[in-house]
Amino acid sequence: MGKPALLACDWGTTNLRAWTLDADGQVVAHKEFDLGVSRLAPGEAAKRFEAEVQPAFGAQGLPAILCGMVGSNLGWTVAPYADCPVGLDELAACLAPVEAHGAWARIVPGVRSQGLAGAPDVMRGEETQLMGWLAEHPDRRSGRRVICHPGTHAKWMLVEDGRLVRFVTAMTGELFAVLGKHSVLKSEAPANDIPAFEMGLVAAGEGDALAARLFTARSRVVGGGASAESTPSYLSGLLIAAEVAAVPRLLGIAAHEPVVLLGDERLCSLYSRALARRGVAHETFDGEAAAVAGLFALYSLGAAR
Amino acid sequence: MGKPALLACDWGTTNLRAWTLDADGQVVAHKEFDLGVSRLAPGEAAKRFEAEVQPAFGAQGLPAILCGMVGSNLGWTVAPYADCPVGLDELAACLAPVEAHGAWARIVPGVRSQGLAGAPDVMRGEETQLMGWLAEHPDRRSGRRVICHPGTHAKWMLVEDGRLVRFVTAMTGELFAVLGKHSVLKSEAPANDIPAFEMGLVAAGEGDALAARLFTARSRVVGGGASAESTPSYLSGLLIAAEVAAVPRLLGIAAHEPVVLLGDERLCSLYSRALARRGVAHETFDGEAAAVAGLFALYSLGAAR
Repeated sequence: MGKPALLACDWGTTNLRAWTLDADGQVVAHKEFDLGVSRLAPGEAAKRFEAEVQPAFGAQGLPAILCGMVGSNLGWTVAPYADCPVGLDELAACLAPVEAHGAWARIVPGVRSQGLAGAPDVMRGEETQLMGWLAEHPDRRSGRRVICHPGTHAKWMLVEDGRLVRFVTAMTGELFAVLGKHSVLKSEAPANDIPAFEMGLVAAGEGDALAARLFTARSRVVGGGASAESTPSYLSGLLIAAEVAAVPRLLGIAAHEPVVLLGDERLCSLYSRALARRGVAHETFDGEAAAVAGLFALYSLGAAR
Repeated sequence: MGKPALLACDWGTTNLRAWTLDADGQVVAHKEFDLGVSRLAPGEAAKRFEAEVQPAFGAQGLPAILCGMVGSNLGWTVAPYADCPVGLDELAACLAPVEAHGAWARIVPGVRSQGLAGAPDVMRGEETQLMGWLAEHPDRRSGRRVICHPGTHAKWMLVEDGRLVRFVTAMTGELFAVLGKHSVLKSEAPANDIPAFEMGLVAAGEGDALAARLFTARSRVVGGGASAESTPSYLSGLLIAAEVAAVPRLLGIAAHEPVVLLGDERLCSLYSRALARRGVAHETFDGEAAAVAGLFALYSLGAAR
């Protein structure tokens, strides 16, 4: 491991993950900050970055590259969306310049896709993980890949020859959160009941009529004697399986095309169960490592310009 | 209009509607009370009924009949569910007895149906509106009818020869409320933008992949330049059309079977737009009048026993 050469940040809505990387892209140090852009006042991102993030690593002089919602109107500066299809080179060509303590700094643009019902779909941050995953092995940049990034707003991405062709967002994680906190399905219980999760997978059917299928999470307790504590697990299974069953069709891919799960390990393991139940081949990769690789690859290409 | 002969109550989760009816079932007086069972402590329903509802009408000596969540474990006493298939006579045969100031009083049981994914589906209150609608005209009690009752938990009911055969609940209204208040789609704007509502109808597709279709309510604003104020209307159209497209299949009926809309006038008019767009023939009836008719019919049969 060499000395720090780059400060790389995945700066999202709820928090900021930062790493210093050496000249080969290896992680030197890693810190997290309670600085999600949703908590920042307008104009505050640059100040907090200079006052807290750079000093925490002693990295005031280092070049910096940042991805995520920091490039939105809630963040530091608006890094305009790049339109699909888009690959690593094209993304590196439109990094948005900012400056921090006089050092080179760039924000990765989000990506926009022709979406459903005439509305464009958008992402900020997931494109960097995707590019990192593609950059990690050259053979991933040929042929066709379907990548699913689970999360608050899960992304299903179709990649052809290393370029993101189109994607669809499913707000599965957000549905889970708001229903679990604010609806008749609310519960304080943890979502760790595997049999209830599996029952939720079954109850999702083919991902149709979700509003009706969701009510089974209530009726199985009120009318069927299931424990209220099992509701979050059942709800989680139902929502994930409904996504896995129906969203690939919207992406225009075959129902059983193999899937790459890229993201949080725990979440990916839930999606893995849902995919396995449908007989869909899949592999799982760590999203954080992919984010670091993506930031490093984009920096390497962007700084060379 | 004769003198009061019955105190009839539709006592739900959020409020209590009460009427005095004459011996022919005509409404003499109508009042609403802020006494939804979700606001009551255990054991409080009987006391508040005697202390507030009966005196408000000067109706301490009248017989009373009540339907809705007042028959649940949150209410006055548990009126055990009647199982489908169930008609007016069968429902009247299992009214749950309570007593108020010494007067005859009965609570209408809820109804239970074999539901999705092995979970029973349940209703409390809608069965009374349904029975009232059926009781209003004898010819409604022959043949096959599909009744949709829009609401927080919308009910789709299949009736054959006057008996409720089965039903499916869709938590469409609750999804609209929690997403509009607590999610990335939250907005204070009123849902009265008809073009945005119609765009939502289109965006619902065939009611599949709802978590993905919902995200268009966000991306059309963030990436597509739609006004944030139009989000509630768009969301309303999307959720209602998704229900109308997909739930009939779950009920086991043909996609274009004619539908009776029974419920709140404004809500029914939104469902009417969604059904019209799909070319589904439908008629609308007032849910409150049906509740009164149902309570009177159940009382008439129940008191005669």
